[in-house]
Amino acid sequence: MLSADLVLRGGSVVTMDAAGTVLPEADVAVADGAIVAVGPALEVEAARVLDVRGCAVTPGFVNAHTHQCLLRGTKEDRPLETWLDELCFPMEHALQPSHTVAAAQMNQIEMIRSGTTTFVDMYRHLSDIAPIVDRSGLRAVLAPQIMDVGNGRGETWEEAEDFVRAWAGQHPRIDAWVGPHAPYTVHAEGYLRARRLADEVGTRVMTHLCETRFEVEEVTRREGVGPVEWLDRLGVLDGLLGAHGVWLSDDDRERLARRGASIVHNPSSNMKLASGVAEVGKAKEAGVAVGLGTDSVLSNNNLDMIEEARLASFLQKVTLGDATALPAAEALRLATMGGAEAIGMADRIGSIEVGKRADLVVISLEAAHMWPVFIGEQTNIVEQIVYSASAADVRHTIVDGVPLMLDRELLTLDEAEASEAVRLAAADLIGTLPPTTPYQ
Amino acid sequence: MLSADLVLRGGSVVTMDAAGTVLPEADVAVADGAIVAVGPALEVEAARVLDVRGCAVTPGFVNAHTHQCLLRGTKEDRPLETWLDELCFPMEHALQPSHTVAAAQMNQIEMIRSGTTTFVDMYRHLSDIAPIVDRSGLRAVLAPQIMDVGNGRGETWEEAEDFVRAWAGQHPRIDAWVGPHAPYTVHAEGYLRARRLADEVGTRVMTHLCETRFEVEEVTRREGVGPVEWLDRLGVLDGLLGAHGVWLSDDDRERLARRGASIVHNPSSNMKLASGVAEVGKAKEAGVAVGLGTDSVLSNNNLDMIEEARLASFLQKVTLGDATALPAAEALRLATMGGAEAIGMADRIGSIEVGKRADLVVISLEAAHMWPVFIGEQTNIVEQIVYSASAADVRHTIVDGVPLMLDRELLTLDEAEASEAVRLAAADLIGTLPPTTPYQ
Repeated sequence: MLSADLVLRGGSVVTMDAAGTVLPEADVAVADGAIVAVGPALEVEAARVLDVRGCAVTPGFVNAHTHQCLLRGTKEDRPLETWLDELCFPMEHALQPSHTVAAAQMNQIEMIRSGTTTFVDMYRHLSDIAPIVDRSGLRAVLAPQIMDVGNGRGETWEEAEDFVRAWAGQHPRIDAWVGPHAPYTVHAEGYLRARRLADEVGTRVMTHLCETRFEVEEVTRREGVGPVEWLDRLGVLDGLLGAHGVWLSDDDRERLARRGASIVHNPSSNMKLASGVAEVGKAKEAGVAVGLGTDSVLSNNNLDMIEEARLASFLQKVTLGDATALPAAEALRLATMGGAEAIGMADRIGSIEVGKRADLVVISLEAAHMWPVFIGEQTNIVEQIVYSASAADVRHTIVDGVPLMLDRELLTLDEAEASEAVRLAAADLIGTLPPTTPYQ
Repeated sequence: MLSADLVLRGGSVVTMDAAGTVLPEADVAVADGAIVAVGPALEVEAARVLDVRGCAVTPGFVNAHTHQCLLRGTKEDRPLETWLDELCFPMEHALQPSHTVAAAQMNQIEMIRSGTTTFVDMYRHLSDIAPIVDRSGLRAVLAPQIMDVGNGRGETWEEAEDFVRAWAGQHPRIDAWVGPHAPYTVHAEGYLRARRLADEVGTRVMTHLCETRFEVEEVTRREGVGPVEWLDRLGVLDGLLGAHGVWLSDDDRERLARRGASIVHNPSSNMKLASGVAEVGKAKEAGVAVGLGTDSVLSNNNLDMIEEARLASFLQKVTLGDATALPAAEALRLATMGGAEAIGMADRIGSIEVGKRADLVVISLEAAHMWPVFIGEQTNIVEQIVYSASAADVRHTIVDGVPLMLDRELLTLDEAEASEAVRLAAADLIGTLPPTTPYQ
């Protein structure tokens, strides 16, 4: 008989394997943080058994683009320039590690509560943030965000280099990449320096890419070619993770595919900031790996990957005028395997298959908004998750076989302490902002 | 000292009055089902006190267009024709009152759980459904749905007339209107008969209106004018509630305004079915009252009005390329006062003002996805509700001063019994559907 540390018994297992298999009433066995068996009525002896009958078990969600920001819901519904001038820029200049630490706790609590098991963060003070990820139990890629044009403020190169050298490839759940902010805020020298640093320590580069029409026009005006071709010429496109990819040409998609670069789709953020609609289908057809992200709480404003998958599907359908576009299973794939592929972890996470890390989410199907549930041949479980569920339906969140939340109870972070830290840090940070311009 | 039946103490009261007032730490007093006082530290003696400190109190949500359907998540992501042939039409022909009763319980439980206090339903077997609304405690407008063209099936005229005569204006919380389905499924005679019935009993007519481009083209081909002008010529536009209004011309909007007709915006449904994007701002500017609806669980697939308000805002922003479009407060207005105006109940519901019915929702602000909360001058409570919250943050739901849910516990409907009824009814109904055509 197989011996395991943990077994989840009797759930509907949405494997997200290549065939899209959904196993009714199956078990998932975990040993040493990895999935060691998946199937009905496994003969396994486990130290811990979770009865998940009546629930769905899915791979943990991969939030492939976010920033751990604090001031959710502040100075909303403004034109981009006003929003930057009144919120983003002054905030970036005032931001202290205490603010970012509070934000990181808030964001990671919300992610655990909504079934995200891996996130990709591109922001500030990461030497202070990495220890929080170590404690929260989440899997993360952290990239210091660097800006050297304009009024914004990122990490200094010194901070960034120290962090990346210290953390890249050094922790079983945390990796460090390099994060030049965007083609309109970083010089060619900045991208080249990011590339050299990444090559030197054997890691990757991420950046905002073709998020807005402004960005494409600005870079084209300055460089004579668009952002993708510019980065390609600089030699920094290889293995690049590009957030957004809203304004890509066919040539851009071919270049991205050729260089093994990936895209992260952020439908909520693109809608809320009026950036545009990414052509997800065309990117996938061109062979570009596509993940899904929430972006930050400033532009979403929650970190609910289920809602994000739903929105990805709905937005493609209405934009293409095609109700068959991005079906539920493909939307869920973006949120799991798609993200795993985009960040180069498809061999380790993104699906429930033997040999992968045990990053698992158990989703309750018992609330009225999930009725009726069909199990077996006519199963509608994937549809109920993508089109009806929300963060609060997530019951257990498990990373590397370690439960971070069981029955909605957080096990690794202290919610009361984090709440108080956010209250203090937010009051402090908002006090540094300029007065609000009337906007209506 | 004022005497009351119920007082909610110390919440942030989002009144949705004309000035958009948000009162920090205020009380709401209720007597005989009506709001009798609103303000800080009310001197009031009440039989029941709810401590809602740290919560938001908003008007109950008005879901101005839905159908109480059962088979959520079934035969999804199909082209419209396949979806109609394989799900909608056969289901309508097989539908028995037992199915609709199960659906109504499921839908009403979900609505209470997500803060909807008034809903507008246009569907089947309403003589069996009205008693469930009587029991659930919700406020509802029920309209028997009539179809006399094509392969669908609605109520017979006999059933519809019996229901409307029996229920219009007869119940403090339930009204009955007449519901000819749509300009492409109902003849001129059907609309005229609906108009006569409504006039005779002193009630109103609702219909699907300009939902799809197909509808406008089909009616124009048949009648030489679009659906709005056609209905205007027939004399049925006065006080009409038109669901969707995606494909309206300027002339249509002027006609609607002139006739006191209203529109219900259904962003999720319009996205999921790829119908298009309604020009909400233009309708409002033309003087048309605009409400917000979820449409049914077949095309949404949940009944979460908070998510619907968020999506309404996001969809306008991305479609117009304008991040200032439909700000949070306006989106929340659509979900409350907008709906009240659209259904002619603005004197009774839609805002928290003295003299209105006590339809109240208490929303918890304690979850991490709502942090940080600012009270007072810089308050971000409306933004946190619209852009971050979801159904599960609703803590209490109150209609006519009567709690239907307290601390997430349902008080009027039996969830376990309803769940079992849905299971049986759904298994029965799905068995009547034809086999699925491969669609990918």
